[in-house]
Amino acid sequence: MRVDGRQSDELRPVIIEADYIKHPEGSVLISFGDTKVICSASIEERVPPFMRGQGKGWVTAEYAMLPRATESRNIRESSKGKLSGRTMEIQRLIGRALRSVVDLDAIGERTVWVDCDVIQADGGTRTAAVTGAFAAMCLAFQKAAADKTMKKFPVTDYLAAVSVGVDEEHGAILDLNYAEDSKAEVDMNLIMTGSGEFVEIQGTGEEATFSRSQLNSLLDLGEKGISELFAIQKEAIGEAASYLESEGEKES
Amino acid sequence: MRVDGRQSDELRPVIIEADYIKHPEGSVLISFGDTKVICSASIEERVPPFMRGQGKGWVTAEYAMLPRATESRNIRESSKGKLSGRTMEIQRLIGRALRSVVDLDAIGERTVWVDCDVIQADGGTRTAAVTGAFAAMCLAFQKAAADKTMKKFPVTDYLAAVSVGVDEEHGAILDLNYAEDSKAEVDMNLIMTGSGEFVEIQGTGEEATFSRSQLNSLLDLGEKGISELFAIQKEAIGEAASYLESEGEKES
Amino acid sequence: MRVDGRQSDELRPVIIEADYIKHPEGSVLISFGDTKVICSASIEERVPPFMRGQGKGWVTAEYAMLPRATESRNIRESSKGKLSGRTMEIQRLIGRALRSVVDLDAIGERTVWVDCDVIQADGGTRTAAVTGAFAAMCLAFQKAAADKTMKKFPVTDYLAAVSVGVDEEHGAILDLNYAEDSKAEVDMNLIMTGSGEFVEIQGTGEEATFSRSQLNSLLDLGEKGISELFAIQKEAIGEAASYLESEGEKES
Amino acid sequence: MRVDGRQSDELRPVIIEADYIKHPEGSVLISFGDTKVICSASIEERVPPFMRGQGKGWVTAEYAMLPRATESRNIRESSKGKLSGRTMEIQRLIGRALRSVVDLDAIGERTVWVDCDVIQADGGTRTAAVTGAFAAMCLAFQKAAADKTMKKFPVTDYLAAVSVGVDEEHGAILDLNYAEDSKAEVDMNLIMTGSGEFVEIQGTGEEATFSRSQLNSLLDLGEKGISELFAIQKEAIGEAASYLESEGEKES
Amino acid sequence: MRVDGRQSDELRPVIIEADYIKHPEGSVLISFGDTKVICSASIEERVPPFMRGQGKGWVTAEYAMLPRATESRNIRESSKGKLSGRTMEIQRLIGRALRSVVDLDAIGERTVWVDCDVIQADGGTRTAAVTGAFAAMCLAFQKAAADKTMKKFPVTDYLAAVSVGVDEEHGAILDLNYAEDSKAEVDMNLIMTGSGEFVEIQGTGEEATFSRSQLNSLLDLGEKGISELFAIQKEAIGEAASYLESEGEKES
Amino acid sequence: MRVDGRQSDELRPVIIEADYIKHPEGSVLISFGDTKVICSASIEERVPPFMRGQGKGWVTAEYAMLPRATESRNIRESSKGKLSGRTMEIQRLIGRALRSVVDLDAIGERTVWVDCDVIQADGGTRTAAVTGAFAAMCLAFQKAAADKTMKKFPVTDYLAAVSVGVDEEHGAILDLNYAEDSKAEVDMNLIMTGSGEFVEIQGTGEEATFSRSQLNSLLDLGEKGISELFAIQKEAIGEAASYLESEGEKES
Repeated sequence: MRVDGRQSDELRPVIIEADYIKHPEGSVLISFGDTKVICSASIEERVPPFMRGQGKGWVTAEYAMLPRATESRNIRESSKGKLSGRTMEIQRLIGRALRSVVDLDAIGERTVWVDCDVIQADGGTRTAAVTGAFAAMCLAFQKAAADKTMKKFPVTDYLAAVSVGVDEEHGAILDLNYAEDSKAEVDMNLIMTGSGEFVEIQGTGEEATFSRSQLNSLLDLGEKGISELFAIQKEAIGEAASYLESEGEKES
Repeated sequence: MRVDGRQSDELRPVIIEADYIKHPEGSVLISFGDTKVICSASIEERVPPFMRGQGKGWVTAEYAMLPRATESRNIRESSKGKLSGRTMEIQRLIGRALRSVVDLDAIGERTVWVDCDVIQADGGTRTAAVTGAFAAMCLAFQKAAADKTMKKFPVTDYLAAVSVGVDEEHGAILDLNYAEDSKAEVDMNLIMTGSGEFVEIQGTGEEATFSRSQLNSLLDLGEKGISELFAIQKEAIGEAASYLESEGEKES
Repeated sequence: MRVDGRQSDELRPVIIEADYIKHPEGSVLISFGDTKVICSASIEERVPPFMRGQGKGWVTAEYAMLPRATESRNIRESSKGKLSGRTMEIQRLIGRALRSVVDLDAIGERTVWVDCDVIQADGGTRTAAVTGAFAAMCLAFQKAAADKTMKKFPVTDYLAAVSVGVDEEHGAILDLNYAEDSKAEVDMNLIMTGSGEFVEIQGTGEEATFSRSQLNSLLDLGEKGISELFAIQKEAIGEAASYLESEGEKES
Repeated sequence: MRVDGRQSDELRPVIIEADYIKHPEGSVLISFGDTKVICSASIEERVPPFMRGQGKGWVTAEYAMLPRATESRNIRESSKGKLSGRTMEIQRLIGRALRSVVDLDAIGERTVWVDCDVIQADGGTRTAAVTGAFAAMCLAFQKAAADKTMKKFPVTDYLAAVSVGVDEEHGAILDLNYAEDSKAEVDMNLIMTGSGEFVEIQGTGEEATFSRSQLNSLLDLGEKGISELFAIQKEAIGEAASYLESEGEKES
Repeated sequence: MRVDGRQSDELRPVIIEADYIKHPEGSVLISFGDTKVICSASIEERVPPFMRGQGKGWVTAEYAMLPRATESRNIRESSKGKLSGRTMEIQRLIGRALRSVVDLDAIGERTVWVDCDVIQADGGTRTAAVTGAFAAMCLAFQKAAADKTMKKFPVTDYLAAVSVGVDEEHGAILDLNYAEDSKAEVDMNLIMTGSGEFVEIQGTGEEATFSRSQLNSLLDLGEKGISELFAIQKEAIGEAASYLESEGEKES
Repeated sequence: MRVDGRQSDELRPVIIEADYIKHPEGSVLISFGDTKVICSASIEERVPPFMRGQGKGWVTAEYAMLPRATESRNIRESSKGKLSGRTMEIQRLIGRALRSVVDLDAIGERTVWVDCDVIQADGGTRTAAVTGAFAAMCLAFQKAAADKTMKKFPVTDYLAAVSVGVDEEHGAILDLNYAEDSKAEVDMNLIMTGSGEFVEIQGTGEEATFSRSQLNSLLDLGEKGISELFAIQKEAIGEAASYLESEGEKES
């Protein structure tokens, strides 16, 4: 049994609270155990300069943590005057992953900004952020499709993320909390689609390297966890889920 | 009747949820109607360079908004690489106000960082932030006093803030929401102590100037609103309130 | 008697030297005792992006101090690469105050930049800056009105500022110099118009809080001081004063 | 046959020119076809603040491109005043990978800076950089071990990196050049050790997602390519290779 | 006759007003015609990190212009967040020149900051700044020598600067004003010592190149102008001049 | 004999390797002894804002050093977030010098960016950069002239730069290496055209001042060195040299 009583292949309790804040087109508060992230999706009626005039849209993400989301207080990146490498890596990852399941042509010349703000951190903030960002984005697109701003619902598949790792005591484990992450020998983040394909695999063995058979165990575990996340997303996004599942038909 | 059905001298519903996030020494989620601010107080075991070696502490505040706390999305200050003048003004104001009711000698060489992060904005974010920051700070000091980290509870009086303004239709009004604030001719923020003294008065008449008699009406209204906020704070901070009220005795 | 021999309600010698530097449309060197500020007003033939296409103008201010305007040398903000919160607060205050007495529609799509550069500081730099900025701006508008660049003189009333404070020894005092300001328990800046209305009230009691009756004494003192400043401004701006006083008629 | 006549599982010509510049403790010019990177390793007699007093060392990397290393000119990051997210990601990756094969205790309180400057880019700059950085670092450590600055040669295994991808026409391909990379559906970078373990796997499918069986093909291809790189590294680093291979014995 | 009626070899009226502002150890307002620069010298009781522990001092300079010192308003470097290349060039030049006539050992571990702030510009701001900076620095050192803070007056020779140029109409001319500078084919700044040696020669022919014989004419003209500046400096710095001239003796 | 066996008036071996990197329109690797600089010229089809609409072009330069081009490692300017004053001075100098021999009207509305990146430094990096930048620029223009992008070859004369200095032991010396430069009393950089005119003279005597006769010796030495550089440039730029020499005729 793990430090919080979970089995090796068990997710923490995952809760997605839809429409958490009132101004964004879509928003959720997502919890992976004690990790809590506010995800909000904003639709802006223009695209960045490098996309102009192509008749298609763009999806981008930003990620941040409140200074005291963590055990000890972090200096704000706005006070330091620059983003850390870690922040940049994570927000590039979220944006890239979201774009893999969006039909950018169907958005028109609009930008979807998905903001992921961690209000409490206990490991797995980037995987919670991807999973919540997808839900917030779906809620925003559902409104746009419902009021005919967009001619169809532009999301082509489910998308979720989970972390897996290797722990000296338990071997391969799913959805690491902060205590587990700090001691893990290998740390891997997986992002997959509803059809079981990979979008991103990022595995790092700073403390130790890993073999191909360990890699295979981690992938098995991740696939199991992500399939559970899809069910939770579907429940949370309500009507947007029916749009997503019947996307081909609704267009006609 | 005002746009949301309130009387001229009526606050919006004010809720203070204590211990909202788990890592900080003290934290609250404060709501003034639809304005919601996470306030957290962190105690750091050192002081800024200009305070070193004096045997006393420091209290400082930071203020920020999530990008989509507002009607339209704001660019993050961390992306822009600098704080706006508005942010600096507000965070300097919060820190100054908090210090007016803290015995810095009693803290020892420690810094209290109070972070005020607006997750949803509907007018009055700075007054909600001051009022919530005070509560979060008290919760943090209560723990420090309880576990004898600090030799006494260093807060000397209650502290709360409210906005008042002049509206063409209703005259002087209390606790303006965003719609009211946008149309107000005069906008004033008041910060007061439990003993009825002023800590800050900031009144601005960009759209219109104001007379001395209007000023007096605004001050009357603000005094009424702030006295109601003290009762809500007292309820929310629980045991810290009893420390605060018997502060002189507990020390001995 | 105060440290420099003044009565409680006495201003320092105030001198406004018009047309102090040759390039700006309007400029003054203003002295409040040993506090000396060069104020210059520049008229630019365009407005900032958020004002474009509205057919009206904008007035904005910038404030800075030479590094050795003060007792000990300050690092330049250009070397630090950013403005301090204090600088931002002051320049926002000056701009807001000036706009309260300018008819922005009458300017046309132009920006008036008022630069306030403190060459020697001895307390009250922001009130000297507001008072001098108003004079420099009037001189610039007078030229624009005289040569028909603007169809009328767009200033609607006089504007001046003064500091007041509470001192342990003398009680309420007017126009604090640096030595007084450093020891004051309460510090307040007032900005008023020629018709006796308030534009800004900013009162702070970092060292001590203040009561409503103290506030009233400070306001009385400030009103007295500001009325004396109007006379000095009128003398200094010469022909611009006659434009200002007959503004309604000259337009026709 | 691929655009440049290679087989699917064929590396571009790889050349490592040791001691390319005279000042650094170790340096190489590495070419993966037309991709050319100057890698230099500098040993500094101190560690970053977070490592002080632990008696161990640190290895870190920096990555940059000359403005015209690419088809069209890029603005310098020094002129923009900040590093791009891409640069930060790559230099964090290189540093992390190098540390996985270095015994930090054996370095003592020293920092090894490995600078990777791309002078000509044609795809695969990050994999060439990792592979060259390893060689430059070994050359620097060899000198330190030879002159007894370090008590042993601190590198524990070979380290190299290669890219693999999926191309519509050829399927899985090894070591993509820029033309191939631009059209690839899946892009993956692998970093492995001489003992056949993984250090990093980073796979991204922005244009298309990828299945588990495609992943397996890519891993097979990468393992083949990396084993060839080890032979080239061994040749290039000369005496350092014999230190590396007999590292256990030389220490005694 | 030149545009302002001067002969080719004639300086503009040069005025040096000593002790212009009250806080600095030394200060002057220097005018070269309509070019006016406030120069102030501040003595700080420490040296920059690279000088520590050597028992000697440092002299450095900073240069800036008020935004409306020029014909059209310049954006403040503090608002832009960085110094221009022109500013950096000029302040490095001033610092280097001052150090050439100061015995750094005689200062002790102190830094002299010389701030040159142009309040009105009409060509030749850098030569006026050097000439005024020298005077301000002498005044500061005189006080330090008089009150025995420094064991001797550390300035070893006079120092002044002037511009020379080639004009299509008049040939070689001395001390160019802005109108002349804008049209000059060659622009050269000379800095010399009281003993007739060169400290800096900076000649640029962006519009046209220049021959060796033109160079010789320019040097002749500059030598004449600088010798006149020494007389004006000597007058202005009063007692400091006697220290400077008898520096060898006063030490013993 | 000098430290490296040269005569006082002897250049180090100078090598210009044309077309050193593949993407730029023109590029060279230039060596002045152990000083090595990659110079590349990029032609961009637009001009900076201040040049727009005038039908003419612009030439600008950027200069940088790899972190370990020098004896000890320098922090990257991209990491520091700003350019040093030294870098700005040098790149402004290179750009100004190149423009003195280019007919900007003949370029059309294009910008030529010349990047000078020092990969190994041993004194004289700025003079090597100017000399190599000229060659890279000529190669780029030759292509543009050959393919009729530009109606004529726009370079009007040769351009090269060399350093000269005064050394206690050898007197005036040509082309100082780093060891010589560190000990030189006077340091001067000369830039001249093929017709024997001066473009820039920058002489500095931080350690010692210099007399007019020393200046003359330095100029003689510089003229000799630069004339030798022209022969090496001519050889390196091949066909571009014939364009340059017959520039008047080819146009017709």
